[in-house]
Amino acid sequence: MFRKLLSLEEAHEAIARRVKPRALGTEEATLLGAFDRVLAEDIVAAHDIPPFDRATVDGYAVRAQDTFGAEENRPVELKICGTVRTGHLSKIKVGKKQAAEIFTGAPIPEGADAVVMVENTDKESEHIRVFSAVPKSGNVMEAGSDIKKGETVLTKGRRLGSREIGAVAALGIDQVKVQIIPRVAVFSTGPEVIQPGSRLAPGKIYDINSYSLSAAVLKSGGKPIHLGIVKDEFSELQETLKVALKTADMVVTSGGVSVGPKDLMPKVLASLGKSGLILSGIAVKPGKPTTVADIDGKLVYSLPGHPASALMIFHLLVRPMIQVMAGIAPTKDPELEAVAGARMFSAKGRKTFVMVKLREDKSNGIFAEPVSKGDSGAITTLTKADGFVEIPENVQFVDMKERITVHLFAQNL
Amino acid sequence: MFRKLLSLEEAHEAIARRVKPRALGTEEATLLGAFDRVLAEDIVAAHDIPPFDRATVDGYAVRAQDTFGAEENRPVELKICGTVRTGHLSKIKVGKKQAAEIFTGAPIPEGADAVVMVENTDKESEHIRVFSAVPKSGNVMEAGSDIKKGETVLTKGRRLGSREIGAVAALGIDQVKVQIIPRVAVFSTGPEVIQPGSRLAPGKIYDINSYSLSAAVLKSGGKPIHLGIVKDEFSELQETLKVALKTADMVVTSGGVSVGPKDLMPKVLASLGKSGLILSGIAVKPGKPTTVADIDGKLVYSLPGHPASALMIFHLLVRPMIQVMAGIAPTKDPELEAVAGARMFSAKGRKTFVMVKLREDKSNGIFAEPVSKGDSGAITTLTKADGFVEIPENVQFVDMKERITVHLFAQNL
Repeated sequence: MFRKLLSLEEAHEAIARRVKPRALGTEEATLLGAFDRVLAEDIVAAHDIPPFDRATVDGYAVRAQDTFGAEENRPVELKICGTVRTGHLSKIKVGKKQAAEIFTGAPIPEGADAVVMVENTDKESEHIRVFSAVPKSGNVMEAGSDIKKGETVLTKGRRLGSREIGAVAALGIDQVKVQIIPRVAVFSTGPEVIQPGSRLAPGKIYDINSYSLSAAVLKSGGKPIHLGIVKDEFSELQETLKVALKTADMVVTSGGVSVGPKDLMPKVLASLGKSGLILSGIAVKPGKPTTVADIDGKLVYSLPGHPASALMIFHLLVRPMIQVMAGIAPTKDPELEAVAGARMFSAKGRKTFVMVKLREDKSNGIFAEPVSKGDSGAITTLTKADGFVEIPENVQFVDMKERITVHLFAQNL
Repeated sequence: MFRKLLSLEEAHEAIARRVKPRALGTEEATLLGAFDRVLAEDIVAAHDIPPFDRATVDGYAVRAQDTFGAEENRPVELKICGTVRTGHLSKIKVGKKQAAEIFTGAPIPEGADAVVMVENTDKESEHIRVFSAVPKSGNVMEAGSDIKKGETVLTKGRRLGSREIGAVAALGIDQVKVQIIPRVAVFSTGPEVIQPGSRLAPGKIYDINSYSLSAAVLKSGGKPIHLGIVKDEFSELQETLKVALKTADMVVTSGGVSVGPKDLMPKVLASLGKSGLILSGIAVKPGKPTTVADIDGKLVYSLPGHPASALMIFHLLVRPMIQVMAGIAPTKDPELEAVAGARMFSAKGRKTFVMVKLREDKSNGIFAEPVSKGDSGAITTLTKADGFVEIPENVQFVDMKERITVHLFAQNL
C-alpha cells in the first residue's frame, strides 16, 4: 500500500464521479409479473373508480326522502318497480314511493339516491315495507369516490406490492412500465477454492462467496449471473471478465485482490477496455483490499476473498449502487440503540465495522456484544451476528457500557 | 345472518381444529435455488472450517518465539526455507530460525505457528529481516476456528439469506432440504368483474382481487396459481374449484359471499367433497362476509369482493395459515405507538380495523389519521394507508388524542 487509502465516503464519491450512477432503463411487465418490481411511470386514472354509483349492500334502491320517518313500528310502504342485477346497467327508473330490488355492486338506477338494506325491509308480493330510514347516498359508493379520473394513483419509483398491484388492476391496466433489473455477474477466484459438492482436497476450501454474493445481489434488487469459480490465471480471468461485461450490467468478483504475486485482479482489470481502475484499497476494516474499476462504463467490484469481508463491502458499497441502477431509493439499515457489552477496538486509521449479537437484559436494556470469532474470514461471524457497530476512523475504541447504534441486518443481508 | 358470528379468534380456532395446520413437507433445492427458502433440516458440519490452519495475510510462516524481541531498529534474521502456495499442502518443515514464504489462505507448514506480515519484513536473497514480533497463532486462522466438525451451523426453520447460503457453501453442501412452497389457487367471481386490459362495459368494474391476492400470496411465502375470473354460475364454480383443489394446496376466492340470490359460493362449497363449511361470517369490519370451508382436507377461503376487505381478511386469516404450511413462524406486523388524529368508531359487536395514515408532528409526535375514503370497497384506502388500528369488539370508539397502537403494513401487504 504505497498511497493513502480512500475513506468509505471518498470511495463512494470516486465511483459516482466516474460512472454517474442512474437507473438502467425501463421495460413492460404484466400485472402479475410486476409484483415487487419498481414502477417506472406515474399511474394516472383514465376513468372514475368506481365508474358508476354502486350499491354497497343487497336491498332496494330508493329515493332517500321516501324513507324518512320509517321506524320499526311505523314502516313505510314502497312499490317494487323492478330488479337491478350486478354487472348490468338497467333502464329502470325509480319514481316517488317506488323501490327497485338491487344487489351489491349493481349500478344505482335512475331516480334512486340510496339503498335500503334487505335486512331492514319486508317483502309482500309487489310491495316492500321499510323499517328504517336511509339518508341520501346511504349504502351507495359514488362514481369516482375511490379514484377520480385524472388522479395520479401511484408515482414513479414505488415498489409494487399487493396493494399497488390491486390499484393498477382497478384502473383496467394490465401492463406497466417497470425499472429494468440490473444483471450482476458474480464469480470467485483463487487457487484454494473448490466447488461445494466436490471432494475436499488438501489445502482447499469450499467456495462461499459466489453463492453468498449471488444471494445478496438478489436481495438488493438485482439478478445474479452465477459464474462459479474462475481459475486465477491472467488469460482466464480476462476472458471471463470480457464475457461477463458483455452479458451483465455489473461484475462482482471476490478473491485475488491483496498484494501477493498471485493476486492478478487489479492487473487484469487494468488490461481491459477504457478507463480502468477507480480505486484500490479502502480505509475500512474488514474489507481493505477492495478494488473497483470501470470498464467501458460498467463497474467491476473486486472484493476480498474473506467471506465476511466480501459480504460487508458488498453491503456498504455494492448494494447501494445496484439499488440506484434498479431505480430503488437506497435503503438504510434499520437501527437500534444498545449498550456495548464489551470494549470494541477500531483498526488504526480505518473505519471499523464490528459484528455484534444482541442480548436483552431485563433490567439494563439491550446489550450488543461482539461475535466472538472476530476473524473476517469466518462465515459464522455473519450467521451469528444480528448487525454491526460502526467505529469512526478517529475513535480508538468504544468502551464497555457506552451507548451505541447497531445497524441491523434484518432482511437486508 | 341468522346465527351468532364467530370472532376472529374463534375463526382461527375453528379452522385450526378442523385442519390441524402444519408444514406441507420438504424437498431438495440447489444452493442458489434455496435462496429465501425455509430450511427443513439442521445443517451440521461434516468437517472443520477451515479444514486446516490458514495464513490470513501474505508473509512468512515462522516459529513465533524466533521473532520475540524483534523491533524496527533491532530486526531478527531468519533463513528462507521455501514457499507455501495457496491451494496446496506443502512438505516444507519450518525449523528454528527459519521462515517459509506464504500467501493468504495457504496452509501453515509444519513447524511454524505464526505468520509475519510481508510489510514487517525485508528480503535479502536467502534471508529475511523481521522488524516486528508476532505472537503464537498470529495471522493464523486455526482449523475449526470458524466451524467445528459436528457443530450445528443452522437449524431447521431458518430463512436462507446470503449469510446462511454462504455458511452452507462453506460446508461443501450443494443441496439442502427446504420446505415445500404452498400452491394457492386464486380467482375472482361476480357478474360485474371483467379482466384488466379489456374494454370497460356498462355496469362492469375491473377485477382487482385475483391480482392483489396473488401478489399477497407471494408475499406470504406461497406460490399463487392465478385463475383470473370465474363466472358466478354453480357448475362453472364447482368445476373450477374441483380442478383448483387437485392442483393447489389451498384456494382463495373473492366475491360472491354475501346474501344475495346470486351469491353461490357457500352453496358450491357445501356441494364439494367431505367436511364442507367451517364458518360463514366473522365478527370483524371490514370482512364480515367471509366463508371458510374444508374440502377433503384442503382449505377454501371465500373472501368478500370488496378489495380492501379481501386483502385485510387475507392478512388476518389466510397469511398466517400459508406461513404455517410453508414452515415459517407466523410473522407479527411491526407496530408503532401513535396518537389518534381523529375519533374512530367501531362497528357494533365487531372487531374493527381502521386504515390509517401516519403524520409526524414535530412537537406532538406521530399522529395516526383514518384514511378518508372509509369505504371498504376503496382500493385507495389501502394504497394510502401506512397501517391499521384495531378497535376491540367491546370498545365503542377510540377518542381523538388517545394513544393507540398502529400495525404497520411495511413489507407485509
